[in-house]
Amino acid sequence: MPNLLLKIKYDGTQYHGWQVQKNALTIQEVLQNAIEAVFGERLDVKGCSRTDSGVHAHEFCVSFQAPFYPGDYHLISALNNHLPEDIKAFSCEEVLADFHARYSATGKEYVYQIWNGKYPNPFYEKYALHYRYPIDIELLNKACALFEGKHDFLSFCSVNTDVEDTVRTIYSCKAVREGELIKIIISGDGFLYNMVRIIAGTLLSVISGKIKCDDIASIIAARERKKAGKTMPAKGLFLNRVFYDEVR
Amino acid sequence: MPNLLLKIKYDGTQYHGWQVQKNALTIQEVLQNAIEAVFGERLDVKGCSRTDSGVHAHEFCVSFQAPFYPGDYHLISALNNHLPEDIKAFSCEEVLADFHARYSATGKEYVYQIWNGKYPNPFYEKYALHYRYPIDIELLNKACALFEGKHDFLSFCSVNTDVEDTVRTIYSCKAVREGELIKIIISGDGFLYNMVRIIAGTLLSVISGKIKCDDIASIIAARERKKAGKTMPAKGLFLNRVFYDEVR
Repeated sequence: MPNLLLKIKYDGTQYHGWQVQKNALTIQEVLQNAIEAVFGERLDVKGCSRTDSGVHAHEFCVSFQAPFYPGDYHLISALNNHLPEDIKAFSCEEVLADFHARYSATGKEYVYQIWNGKYPNPFYEKYALHYRYPIDIELLNKACALFEGKHDFLSFCSVNTDVEDTVRTIYSCKAVREGELIKIIISGDGFLYNMVRIIAGTLLSVISGKIKCDDIASIIAARERKKAGKTMPAKGLFLNRVFYDEVR
Repeated sequence: MPNLLLKIKYDGTQYHGWQVQKNALTIQEVLQNAIEAVFGERLDVKGCSRTDSGVHAHEFCVSFQAPFYPGDYHLISALNNHLPEDIKAFSCEEVLADFHARYSATGKEYVYQIWNGKYPNPFYEKYALHYRYPIDIELLNKACALFEGKHDFLSFCSVNTDVEDTVRTIYSCKAVREGELIKIIISGDGFLYNMVRIIAGTLLSVISGKIKCDDIASIIAARERKKAGKTMPAKGLFLNRVFYDEVR
């Protein structure tokens, strides 16, 4: 049985996140239905992460064992015919038998988008937090840099987590301005529950003057959720890339 | 009575164009309701053009006489509170008494978007035509340039028009590539019904090899709708800017 790595993009607005749930529509359910329509049987599809309700993905990776492999173009086209317009596949390849979309991942990159215009923008209402006051991009990047490296991120984790090891390594954290859109781009070996959204909230607290840049080190050291900023809305968050060492 | 020039952005996906219609929701109706909620009376709102069903706007201009002017920030914020998330105001100013959003316009700029990735992209399903084959941007720009200048654009006008004079001047027509997104940016002193969408269809016929670049001059000269390319879908079209000489 060929083991496949499939990459999809989705607008998460209408979904209750990735993972199958009772009484709520999820990306996994819709994708599994499309895969079943193409292969004629129910297949077990593993996702690279459990994205929350309303979170989007420019690249979400899944792996599954298929009864046959018709080639990337044929499979992607067939799946896209069964998928709704807010979920689309764009890449597929046959990978090593023990490859697993989640356990084989060596890291991920997320983007948090902020619409920094004075007034709300209809084209970003579902894809960015609106923050109307001036953003000092230099100050923002100074704060971003303080998250880079290996830290215990317990202060940046929603309390209802069952994760025991809360140490993660952030490879890079940078902010870029594209006109009135600000993107916070953050990559690391792993992320705790709501971690990117809490880091984004903490960065905005620095911008608004509620937290000083110099306080970030002590907020990290405190290992207390309440010391960090608010959890920013899911709609601004995009899973951007998933890193794997060797796939085949 | 102050005469106001208000600028709005909208995602036209859910609307039957600008102009008020019976039994169909339009941008004008929603905006007039918001204006009535703010001023406490029904005001006559003039739009800069009649955009079609599904067309979007980065800048759509309207003018109306208001009983009072509370200033740009207060008026925009109040209106935005009454507007849905797919229509938002972003600029307002008091203008000359005889200013009219439509009749005072000296030109407009439109953008037609093409998603040129191999597979459909959920984030452009509502905002671009999907064209999956390679696009030669140099050839596209060579074809674009042939539309510039003063021409009779009858070949690029849907047949059910009641316009008598079909001569228009195109100030500029250019294509730019931003990754897998292609934008055709076209400005002129005026546009006939469906003109930008038919020009976009003709440009794509050049790209696909159905029409030669050298044929464009004779297609224009023919003054026959059937000589030009297809009318491209409304969803890829954005009103981008409206030009006025003097507003105050």
